[in-house]
Amino acid sequence: MAQQKKLVEAITSRDEDFAKWYTDIVKKAELADYSGVKGCMVIRPYGYAIWENMQRDMDDRFKRTGHENVYMPMFIPESLLQREKDHVEGFAPECAWVTIGGSEQLTERLCVRPTSETLFCEHYAKVINSYRDLPKLYNQWCSVVRWEKTTRPFLRTSEFLWQEGHTMHETEQEAREETLRMLQVYADFYKETLAIPAVVGRKTEKEKFAGAEETYTIEPMMHNGVALQGGTSHYFGDGFARSFNITFTGRDNTLQYPFQTSWGTSTRMIGALIMVHSDDDGLVLPPKIAPIQVAVIPVAQKKPGVLEKAAELKEQLLQAGLRVKLDDSDKAPGWKFSQYEMLGVPVRLEIGPKDIENGQCVLVRRDTREKMFVSLDAVVETIRTLLTDIHQSMYSAALENLHSKTFVARTHEEFLDIAANKPGFIKAMWCGDSACEDQLKDETGGVKSRCIPFVEEHLADVCVCCGRPAKHMVYWGRQY
Amino acid sequence: MAQQKKLVEAITSRDEDFAKWYTDIVKKAELADYSGVKGCMVIRPYGYAIWENMQRDMDDRFKRTGHENVYMPMFIPESLLQREKDHVEGFAPECAWVTIGGSEQLTERLCVRPTSETLFCEHYAKVINSYRDLPKLYNQWCSVVRWEKTTRPFLRTSEFLWQEGHTMHETEQEAREETLRMLQVYADFYKETLAIPAVVGRKTEKEKFAGAEETYTIEPMMHNGVALQGGTSHYFGDGFARSFNITFTGRDNTLQYPFQTSWGTSTRMIGALIMVHSDDDGLVLPPKIAPIQVAVIPVAQKKPGVLEKAAELKEQLLQAGLRVKLDDSDKAPGWKFSQYEMLGVPVRLEIGPKDIENGQCVLVRRDTREKMFVSLDAVVETIRTLLTDIHQSMYSAALENLHSKTFVARTHEEFLDIAANKPGFIKAMWCGDSACEDQLKDETGGVKSRCIPFVEEHLADVCVCCGRPAKHMVYWGRQY
Repeated sequence: MAQQKKLVEAITSRDEDFAKWYTDIVKKAELADYSGVKGCMVIRPYGYAIWENMQRDMDDRFKRTGHENVYMPMFIPESLLQREKDHVEGFAPECAWVTIGGSEQLTERLCVRPTSETLFCEHYAKVINSYRDLPKLYNQWCSVVRWEKTTRPFLRTSEFLWQEGHTMHETEQEAREETLRMLQVYADFYKETLAIPAVVGRKTEKEKFAGAEETYTIEPMMHNGVALQGGTSHYFGDGFARSFNITFTGRDNTLQYPFQTSWGTSTRMIGALIMVHSDDDGLVLPPKIAPIQVAVIPVAQKKPGVLEKAAELKEQLLQAGLRVKLDDSDKAPGWKFSQYEMLGVPVRLEIGPKDIENGQCVLVRRDTREKMFVSLDAVVETIRTLLTDIHQSMYSAALENLHSKTFVARTHEEFLDIAANKPGFIKAMWCGDSACEDQLKDETGGVKSRCIPFVEEHLADVCVCCGRPAKHMVYWGRQY
Repeated sequence: MAQQKKLVEAITSRDEDFAKWYTDIVKKAELADYSGVKGCMVIRPYGYAIWENMQRDMDDRFKRTGHENVYMPMFIPESLLQREKDHVEGFAPECAWVTIGGSEQLTERLCVRPTSETLFCEHYAKVINSYRDLPKLYNQWCSVVRWEKTTRPFLRTSEFLWQEGHTMHETEQEAREETLRMLQVYADFYKETLAIPAVVGRKTEKEKFAGAEETYTIEPMMHNGVALQGGTSHYFGDGFARSFNITFTGRDNTLQYPFQTSWGTSTRMIGALIMVHSDDDGLVLPPKIAPIQVAVIPVAQKKPGVLEKAAELKEQLLQAGLRVKLDDSDKAPGWKFSQYEMLGVPVRLEIGPKDIENGQCVLVRRDTREKMFVSLDAVVETIRTLLTDIHQSMYSAALENLHSKTFVARTHEEFLDIAANKPGFIKAMWCGDSACEDQLKDETGGVKSRCIPFVEEHLADVCVCCGRPAKHMVYWGRQY
């Protein structure tokens, strides 16, 4: 096991330097690499396979809720971006601009899409005429660009992959329902597929999306107590529809503006997977999105019958619909153990001459390292159960982390004390004034409102910052 | 059936004005729409669903042949693009350049990728060190930009969606095999999934990809006799590897350059689908990529039991794994018939009170309009067989068109006569000199060499243009 030790030592410890541990995992698990373009990353095969599994799962959820995929251009003419005032103010500072096309200076410069509300609106203005054309439930998978100063793989990059849903509805109520429906789809996906619990709720006025009436968010907590905005769902009212002159003839034969939503999640979710679940030996992947669910490692593979049995087991597991890799390379078993731990493969199956003699094999869980001997007859069934268990215990561990790092502050002093000493979420009352958000952020060096949950507790009568009457209970925290 | 007539009349006839017929179908079948950005299109839900079906099918073929998906940045710094001389000369004239990022002038301008050889090479230089790291078999699904002067939806647009494979190999032979393997994967996909036959072969020196040693192509013929470059596969030798300093330690412990390929297909294939298979009533889609394979249309749907039976049939077909749509809207059956013909749905299922009484339904094939009465007990099985038949007869019809519009020219006069009077491919001998290609193109107003097929016929001893000794038999034709 000397080699295993060595490989493990090569990673920075999570408790020692969280940021370095994170980038070590990105590198060692071969998820991404830096490119020659500042702030842009290469998503490597293993990282991309995780993204593909996420995509397929989410896409199924979108289609089950009636959405269709489309593709809009990647360029937005400057005049189109400027059509909605708040929106352009929010995004113009981080746009990348194309000014030359085919050796000629363009008469109007084009922004590489940072998000596509304006493009969807331009198209909707053409295809929506009657209430019969509604709802329009469109989604797009694409890459977007936001010029970032400081970047980190998956968490903040100048270009990233994402999905953006854009929908149009006949009534305000329908659009509001859609906004919350998609927030729930995200929350379900986080829980059921990524095994990540999260706080969900509404953003404050200050933290809203540029141009939105309401922004809802899902906020998982990373292992170190820092929040990540995991996905957002926006209700736009008819603001964009008015700016883009999107109208339809209603059931009462009058001309009306439709009501709009948008919602998005991105490759940032891969960053969340790392920071919520992984440990000092590398990635720990939830079984549903693991590119490899079972790594079959032959032991003493030169002994007669071992490789054959390993191949037979692999085939059996593949037939059962599992994602399996048999590593019959000439590397030592110890090296392989470390390697598939680094890659976060949920279950390792070891099979050697002795095991074959005893009609059994060894299974090792990645999450708890629990090791078990299993009869070869029961191996498929056991692994199936194990994968469900692993998902469940990964979720429970993450939930336990979220609970143990959520604190209540009833006074200003308590708030500052927790912010300074206890990484995590702070639940505290708030007056509704963004000046208090600014003040708390300044005093704490970065703690911001995360969201107002749907069910608010009454922790105190007054705002934790200014002492005026409280309007809401807010989750606060630092963020990536 | 008055409504059906009217709808049909709204499309330009294919024989009258092929170009207008094409754009009519794009519009009426709601495949794509123009956007506010010159040359960029919106791919609408129905068009995108076709693309998704193509993607899934091709992606499976790529994975079965050992390829992995990755994602490279969309920007290429100018200095990186310039690293390979021929390559930059080929692409620089049609690049879109980002010169401003986040309100600041960039010190080096960035090209929006027209293709990603340079980005893959930059990455490969970092991750390839030993022969053990080879082969690298990467593919990417993304959008690319080539600034085009005249554009047409799917056929030629400034931005389009595609896949680009980029592979690196230990030996020249392996890379050459990969180049041809992927050409074959494309040819199989065209035949087995798109029901499109094609001529395949090698491009002449003049028509090669910028920077390639060899370019292979698949060239389907459109209904009007014009060719479309349907997909290309390039062998690069070690040219890029040398320019990008990609080296590996070989089995003999010496430092070597790996051998490279790339291959690509794009949303242009949707254009091919239209121009090969469709007719004056709209799209005709091959069953394997049709977003809807069976349209269930209730007749006299207000009569008791009709909608229930229609829904039951839909469920039965869905259970059988087919893609089905039941249209129970209040539109007239005749309108629906036309509508699903326009959308190219392979099979229409009609069910009315009389049919139910007789324990049968009506099936109508989109390709031949053949109408048949089928017992309700046999409907799933019959449709399955029908879908296979439809694929086969669509392929046969396209093959018949390809054959009947392929001509032999043995003399210069014959060549010019065919080029002027008979749209289609011309098979003719060629000396190997690109001056003759230029001359033939000038004389015919656009007929170019399509490819040198793998099996060449000996049609004559001398070049059809200059009369010098012939080296190759070439397929010639006009192209989109």
